[in-house]
Amino acid sequence: MEPKVTVLTLGVRSLEISRRFYVEGLGWKPLVEVEGEVIFIQVAGGQVLALWSVDELAREAGSVGHSAKAPPIAIGHNVDSAGEVAAVLKEAVAAGATLIRKAGATDWGGTNGYFADPDGFRWEVAHNSGFRVTADGRVHMGPTTD
Amino acid sequence: MEPKVTVLTLGVRSLEISRRFYVEGLGWKPLVEVEGEVIFIQVAGGQVLALWSVDELAREAGSVGHSAKAPPIAIGHNVDSAGEVAAVLKEAVAAGATLIRKAGATDWGGTNGYFADPDGFRWEVAHNSGFRVTADGRVHMGPTTD
Repeated sequence: MEPKVTVLTLGVRSLEISRRFYVEGLGWKPLVEVEGEVIFIQVAGGQVLALWSVDELAREAGSVGHSAKAPPIAIGHNVDSAGEVAAVLKEAVAAGATLIRKAGATDWGGTNGYFADPDGFRWEVAHNSGFRVTADGRVHMGPTTD
Repeated sequence: MEPKVTVLTLGVRSLEISRRFYVEGLGWKPLVEVEGEVIFIQVAGGQVLALWSVDELAREAGSVGHSAKAPPIAIGHNVDSAGEVAAVLKEAVAAGATLIRKAGATDWGGTNGYFADPDGFRWEVAHNSGFRVTADGRVHMGPTTD
């Protein structure tokens, strides 16, 4: 099995509310949308984010679901400068996100902050000067100094 | 905010157990590994999977955590033929995964199956003839017929 992720499916409580945040709020254009069913948005080379009802997901994938705590994942979104972290968090909050951690220095030398989407899914907005992507899509990670 | 995911962080209960599954079991080579801290593996163009302690994640990202139900996400892994779905599921189980749904036809015209990693994170192994990626990393989605 190759190390490859082609789809990241978020099981959401309400597709309508997710659509309002991601499509109308953030302005992300769906690659494919089946109204009331599923929304696909490209988010990396060869990869789409899928917004799908958590109840439908559970019918396929067994006992998955939301709980009192937010899901134990973080979806990272790197930006090109430390200053952009606060700006992107502000944009997300304006689109309906909840601010979880404001922009600040990290112990790994970069800058980050977190917001939660309508289902609590955590997004980390980060500047990491050691994270570089070459034209072929390869990631290179080295020392970070903001 | 651009539609872009650069890091998918899974908050895991034990990095050692996750390492045993992903690195030793599946044979995925870390791009960067900080022993006992974090493991990064490239999984898409411009994107890495991060395996990180869920307790550490919760210190940054607020109240996130595992519950009685598995996390409400699915991590999709597309393969090139319907026959490969069962083969990849078998490989994952041999590496320590739990089979959740064996390979079979889907209502969208493709073939899929699910396994769970040691923390219950669902991976969907799928063949979708309508999902194509061009050389520039762009995803194209059309009708599916397996």
